[in-house]
Amino acid sequence: MATQKAAQWAASLTYSSLPPDALQAAIRSFYNWVGCTVGGSNHPAASIARNSLSRFFGSPTSTLLGTNGLQADAQHAALINGIASHVHDYDDTHLETIIHPTGPVAAALLSFAQSLDRPVSGQDFLAALAAGIELECKAGLAVWPSHYDVGWHITSTTGSIGAAVAVSRLLGLSPEKTAHAIGIAATQVTGLREMFGSHTKSFHPGRAAQNGLLAAILAADGYTSSLQALEAKRGWVNVVSNDDKLTQEIDSLESDGKWELAKNAFKPFPCGIVIHPVIDGCVWLHGELQRRGLRLQDIKSVHVTVHPLVLELTGKTKPKDGLEAKFSVYHGGAIGLIHGKATPAEYEDNVVTNPETIEVRDKFVAIAADNIRADECRILVEFEAPEVKIEKHVHHAVGSIDAPMTDSQLTEKFIGQCSPILGPQQAKIISDWCWSLETKDDVRQIGRFL
Amino acid sequence: MATQKAAQWAASLTYSSLPPDALQAAIRSFYNWVGCTVGGSNHPAASIARNSLSRFFGSPTSTLLGTNGLQADAQHAALINGIASHVHDYDDTHLETIIHPTGPVAAALLSFAQSLDRPVSGQDFLAALAAGIELECKAGLAVWPSHYDVGWHITSTTGSIGAAVAVSRLLGLSPEKTAHAIGIAATQVTGLREMFGSHTKSFHPGRAAQNGLLAAILAADGYTSSLQALEAKRGWVNVVSNDDKLTQEIDSLESDGKWELAKNAFKPFPCGIVIHPVIDGCVWLHGELQRRGLRLQDIKSVHVTVHPLVLELTGKTKPKDGLEAKFSVYHGGAIGLIHGKATPAEYEDNVVTNPETIEVRDKFVAIAADNIRADECRILVEFEAPEVKIEKHVHHAVGSIDAPMTDSQLTEKFIGQCSPILGPQQAKIISDWCWSLETKDDVRQIGRFL
Repeated sequence: MATQKAAQWAASLTYSSLPPDALQAAIRSFYNWVGCTVGGSNHPAASIARNSLSRFFGSPTSTLLGTNGLQADAQHAALINGIASHVHDYDDTHLETIIHPTGPVAAALLSFAQSLDRPVSGQDFLAALAAGIELECKAGLAVWPSHYDVGWHITSTTGSIGAAVAVSRLLGLSPEKTAHAIGIAATQVTGLREMFGSHTKSFHPGRAAQNGLLAAILAADGYTSSLQALEAKRGWVNVVSNDDKLTQEIDSLESDGKWELAKNAFKPFPCGIVIHPVIDGCVWLHGELQRRGLRLQDIKSVHVTVHPLVLELTGKTKPKDGLEAKFSVYHGGAIGLIHGKATPAEYEDNVVTNPETIEVRDKFVAIAADNIRADECRILVEFEAPEVKIEKHVHHAVGSIDAPMTDSQLTEKFIGQCSPILGPQQAKIISDWCWSLETKDDVRQIGRFL
Repeated sequence: MATQKAAQWAASLTYSSLPPDALQAAIRSFYNWVGCTVGGSNHPAASIARNSLSRFFGSPTSTLLGTNGLQADAQHAALINGIASHVHDYDDTHLETIIHPTGPVAAALLSFAQSLDRPVSGQDFLAALAAGIELECKAGLAVWPSHYDVGWHITSTTGSIGAAVAVSRLLGLSPEKTAHAIGIAATQVTGLREMFGSHTKSFHPGRAAQNGLLAAILAADGYTSSLQALEAKRGWVNVVSNDDKLTQEIDSLESDGKWELAKNAFKPFPCGIVIHPVIDGCVWLHGELQRRGLRLQDIKSVHVTVHPLVLELTGKTKPKDGLEAKFSVYHGGAIGLIHGKATPAEYEDNVVTNPETIEVRDKFVAIAADNIRADECRILVEFEAPEVKIEKHVHHAVGSIDAPMTDSQLTEKFIGQCSPILGPQQAKIISDWCWSLETKDDVRQIGRFL
């Protein structure tokens, strides 16, 4: 019954039934997604797909974000925007499952909304987005951790389902048709972890958006799949995992009042999340050095004490380029100290190979400690002359569950992503528009600004 | 190295390197596929998809078979033709893996060939088709049987890979780009067995065609995936199965000179293959009764002795409609005796519920016997007056490995599928065209007739 129960829940979800934390999370998730999508739009993983597939585009209804007004049919827009949103690994994270949930769902939903010949209110849009993200995360929890361990890219395998649910909700499909949509989405299991490190990693959430969109459109017109797609013996959960927490996860949709969506976290820095505490501390230290009139060249050493995973995953001491720098806690610390920020600009190749960066980076020493949490670190900066020591203890890095990014931090991130591509004025206009999505009569108008 | 080895093999395959049995099998496979696709084109699983998705169609380049000249962009044509080809379960079978191999590969290849702005010779087309089908079956053998047992629809999960290989070959991609195409295809694992019995079952080979086509197009333009997509720890084989015969299967491509493609079998009857021996025998008996002047109404009983799987899979004694009749050995035997054939027409609902059908069907008694092979049966017909007995022992049913359908039987099947939709004259023209595919200068011209 889990598939039908999930479908029933989604089909009856409305804007007014969203609790405040879920609503707020939906608004922030979409906001962050737009910034990431614009910011990733000129990466080759997105631009090759855009150029390569343009010969197949149907009637242009849906905006390709960040491309100066290019449009495609909704299916291709879902694919390409979905790719762009994930390509810098800068999108959101449902920490418990490491799903990046908004990409597949928002890419499908926005592209599809723009293809409709009727207005779509911000409130309806947010309810559909919330339904999709919530069931996507629930599906992920149901198969965690065996599903990820064996090698599935959980963002896209669950993303297809989330996208189908969101589009079904926007279309107002019946519970039965929604269940068929879930089935058509679930049977398209996209995403092997072996693709990490290649263009195909970000292809996954894009294709998931398209899978789910296709599923909902077909189901709306009477296409049948299975009403037990998730729980059947040869259905999704059993085929793709050794776990089965589906029943408990779906049952809790109605009972516990807690939303997975509300636990969605946003990355302040475009790199592996385990580096974030060090960057956070070094950004603070940058300011502290300025306040005290201390100079970088006088630093003798920077000792960082971190969770063991940090060195395991991001221990590159001499990154060669921007991509490798995303896996270097040393680079993350250095740019925090030097620039007081870590945005995509500080991960450009020329920053990574800059002598000043290298000089500061080489002063870092990292020590793993079992008693340090993943969102925590300790930093000790020692100066030669004057002989000064500064200590910083980051208890919960910005962007973690306990220290979520504030709206103004999200805005700064958004403007930083969009300004180089759209210009600062346009970036500000879109930022304002997205923050007030809830009050908009017609989401389709986003195309005017993007 | 398996992925790169496979890619290298495919990239260097040419028409002139095809041994005669593989070439003949490629011609017959494509021929049978065209008939099945035309025959399935008006089924709701195909027509809903066609109508529902037409709003997204791009520039019309590629024929939707059986639709009186409708065209779509190559991606949608691949999807819709792939659906149509499988929807009656009347397509080909690689018996060792029960893959229906031609659907995904031919649907992608033909649609794509038609979208090119250059001629595609029949010989190049057949080489690409052969490469795709061969690697599709090899991939299937590598993960058989655990992959199917756990719940994957092996036709589509391997079909994406086969389609990518075929389109890559037609494009003349380098081994490296072909390997990337295999990776992009492999990461889109489409098809859960839970969908059997719904529209989504035939959606699987259609979507597989589209997955593979998309993969090859992106790889051609420089999209990267993994060069170890199949064999890596978190690559295709390990994620989707507990078997790993990949290395041996890929190594044997070059060494043993035997082609899986050459083992492809064609169904003479549109129903579960285990019923075929009984139908085959009853078709012969239909002629024998006529030769002897015996009447159906004088039959007392028909005893059929069959392989145990027959009763397990197709034991429905009183099928209610055409779909159920496909799982009834009794219906299969009855229509063979009455009509001397079993085509889709004999699986129409009104034939299944016809009193004469029911009268003859009820005279059948089926007995399972362990010493009867799956492609064998014994039939004993007893008459009341005159008191006559006729026995028939079918050693190898038509369509089995040991008694393959002849070209003229395939032609009869083709004409039977195409005539109701295209008219008998047009069906004959296309039949002749497809049989002489090898001599054609430009495969794209098939659109003129379909």
